[in-house]
Amino acid sequence: MSFTADAWARTADLRAAIDASPFVTALGAGTLAPATFRHYLEQDVLYLVGYARALSLLAAGAPDVASAGFWSRSAHGAGLVETSLHADLLGSGALPAAPGGGPPVASPTTLAYPSYLVATAATAPHAVGVAAVLPCFWVYADVAGRLARTAAAVVRDGGEHPFARWVAAYDDGGFLASVATARELADAAAAEQPAATVEAMHVAFATATRYELMFWDTAFAHEDWPHPL
Amino acid sequence: MSFTADAWARTADLRAAIDASPFVTALGAGTLAPATFRHYLEQDVLYLVGYARALSLLAAGAPDVASAGFWSRSAHGAGLVETSLHADLLGSGALPAAPGGGPPVASPTTLAYPSYLVATAATAPHAVGVAAVLPCFWVYADVAGRLARTAAAVVRDGGEHPFARWVAAYDDGGFLASVATARELADAAAAEQPAATVEAMHVAFATATRYELMFWDTAFAHEDWPHPL
Amino acid sequence: MSFTADAWARTADLRAAIDASPFVTALGAGTLAPATFRHYLEQDVLYLVGYARALSLLAAGAPDVASAGFWSRSAHGAGLVETSLHADLLGSGALPAAPGGGPPVASPTTLAYPSYLVATAATAPHAVGVAAVLPCFWVYADVAGRLARTAAAVVRDGGEHPFARWVAAYDDGGFLASVATARELADAAAAEQPAATVEAMHVAFATATRYELMFWDTAFAHEDWPHPL
Amino acid sequence: MSFTADAWARTADLRAAIDASPFVTALGAGTLAPATFRHYLEQDVLYLVGYARALSLLAAGAPDVASAGFWSRSAHGAGLVETSLHADLLGSGALPAAPGGGPPVASPTTLAYPSYLVATAATAPHAVGVAAVLPCFWVYADVAGRLARTAAAVVRDGGEHPFARWVAAYDDGGFLASVATARELADAAAAEQPAATVEAMHVAFATATRYELMFWDTAFAHEDWPHPL
Repeated sequence: MSFTADAWARTADLRAAIDASPFVTALGAGTLAPATFRHYLEQDVLYLVGYARALSLLAAGAPDVASAGFWSRSAHGAGLVETSLHADLLGSGALPAAPGGGPPVASPTTLAYPSYLVATAATAPHAVGVAAVLPCFWVYADVAGRLARTAAAVVRDGGEHPFARWVAAYDDGGFLASVATARELADAAAAEQPAATVEAMHVAFATATRYELMFWDTAFAHEDWPHPL
Repeated sequence: MSFTADAWARTADLRAAIDASPFVTALGAGTLAPATFRHYLEQDVLYLVGYARALSLLAAGAPDVASAGFWSRSAHGAGLVETSLHADLLGSGALPAAPGGGPPVASPTTLAYPSYLVATAATAPHAVGVAAVLPCFWVYADVAGRLARTAAAVVRDGGEHPFARWVAAYDDGGFLASVATARELADAAAAEQPAATVEAMHVAFATATRYELMFWDTAFAHEDWPHPL
Repeated sequence: MSFTADAWARTADLRAAIDASPFVTALGAGTLAPATFRHYLEQDVLYLVGYARALSLLAAGAPDVASAGFWSRSAHGAGLVETSLHADLLGSGALPAAPGGGPPVASPTTLAYPSYLVATAATAPHAVGVAAVLPCFWVYADVAGRLARTAAAVVRDGGEHPFARWVAAYDDGGFLASVATARELADAAAAEQPAATVEAMHVAFATATRYELMFWDTAFAHEDWPHPL
Repeated sequence: MSFTADAWARTADLRAAIDASPFVTALGAGTLAPATFRHYLEQDVLYLVGYARALSLLAAGAPDVASAGFWSRSAHGAGLVETSLHADLLGSGALPAAPGGGPPVASPTTLAYPSYLVATAATAPHAVGVAAVLPCFWVYADVAGRLARTAAAVVRDGGEHPFARWVAAYDDGGFLASVATARELADAAAAEQPAATVEAMHVAFATATRYELMFWDTAFAHEDWPHPL
């Protein structure tokens, strides 16, 4: 079995928990509180800064020109999502202003997830770093595909869905092609590794998938730190 | 005011919360449950692996030979703590066996804290990385000094203190000299930085101090993940 | 004076030596031996692999999203040059086959220059890394601009110039815009640094400019190692 | 055959060239010009800065605590050689003052060799980085062992050997134990790698061995840059 097929099967419970999470179900139905969606977008902007750093480290350590090019293009794309898609929506007036003012602060999960990706890309074997960033391509796209279909059905049935266009952005061909390439690179990397490294890849993939789940859940709960700085 | 004096003052509340935390007060009094102490040591062993990686990254990016030597010596020392002080105690039979068997698993905080240090050392300016690792020298030594005195008083008053010797290990001259050097390097680094970088150093110092607090608290609570892998 | 204006002035002799070098003058005149041009392209392909890694490391350590995006886009672009512009020409049959067969081997300078860039980007302050990669944008574009005009004049006067199209590729608007951005980022970085770091930036800029000169010269001389592996 | 046995055999010609090089033969005989020895020590001090950075990067990416500890201890040791053994001799008045004054400047080879090690440790698989630094342990110790015996024989025969004590420092038990550990780590790393990575390890080992040879040769020739900065 390929690494990705195995990793997908091993994370079935985590992925089912994502689909059943209150954030994802409300986002699909169009009933998510706009303040919660704003909070999510703000946290995602903070996340993407570290995610892009992790992708750039993978580009620096990639085994060949083609994969290096993929990771630097993806790093560039992560920055674009942040500065265009999210920023457009956050600045559009369509969402309620953040309470309290001041710049958004990363939640514990929003700090931990990209820290884990950057630390892994900086110090673990390249293949393990690839496995760590893969859920943010693949698991995210998988969830987004269902969200897009659910949101489209809501609109088709005459309902309102304030985030239908945003959701659709992750279901486009370019992003799905990136997912396919990221999977291929993970499988190619795994094929050359000793068993211990493949197992470390599985731990990294599952850990990042759990962070995906926690990211939705903590955004829904507006997770805060136990103590302010 | 020096960076370290300022950083110390800014984190007064977090440091007071550490002293008042249930783990630290019970550890000082000698009343900490041995199973909790074992759990803490196991988590600390996992923490130290990442901490040593962060120190090695600082050594790689240090501005001069003397500071590079300090960080590599500290990285080496962190590994020694792990493989001698902690391992001796964990293997001594003095502590109850871990429930469930299997190797210890990093808690959310035990994964997040060293990930943050490694990610910061790998991608932020060197001075910010220095500020991030400083609490694990300085705040830890400050707490340990009080713990050692409290534990010594318990023993002197004829009480039992199962962890008195372990606690005393962090109050020795070599570790305190390292703390002094780490502070000097942080102040030297801060003296050359623009205001924005010094502010980033403060955020890193406070963030790591909060992780110190959370590390004690989550060890006490045997923090677990919301979902298994 | 801005950092870049100062760095430009300090490297006047090195840059004049580039313009007067036998490779550059022959390339401009269209009289460069095709076998030498092929050797240069092969060496440049090898160089670009390391150059792209250095740019990705700068992306990983960039202070903000905009500059991170610039460096990852540039890293991606360096890979594209390698796999399209150069590969097209090398595979076109327009150039004589390499002697000896076997894959091209990096010359001492082709190994040293990108090693220096990667090592600097990996361990020196970000600003110094930016200064180190800048000549490959700016000095190269400056030389290429004159080459393009010279080559165009040769063609206009009815002469033959086998490399006129290749030369023109470096004089296009997109590359020149990248040069302008790289210069702005270097000046912005320098504005915040202490004097010692700015001086280290100057050393890095001049060192990389000298490597640019050596790269042309050693390609012309088909530089080889004193001993085979 | 183990990786190290194979790598040793493949570099027989390079290692024979080291033993036959004018610097090494004169150093063994005690007839090396003191000004040349001073130049070599100055270049070695510059080399060791980068070498220690490469070792720290290996420590940051080491697969386990024991190997991480070895690399950080070695990084610390490289700094100590620089600041004690070499500095003592350079400051002792036993060697003629450097001509021209001003701080020593790295020669092309003194810049290229550690840049290659740092770049490899920063972006290649860990096993390849281990192979790259190994010659500076092993090949150096092998040469130093013969040098020490030759120098001892000169002294025993009543001859003068101004560098006998310095040469003996590399033939001590601690350094030889480090060589043995570095070899074991290289073999352990190679045992887990796919063939392409093992081949990359061989290229790295041979490349660094050639740099060892070039380091002696260029120190003997007082190698300079084709153009000043």
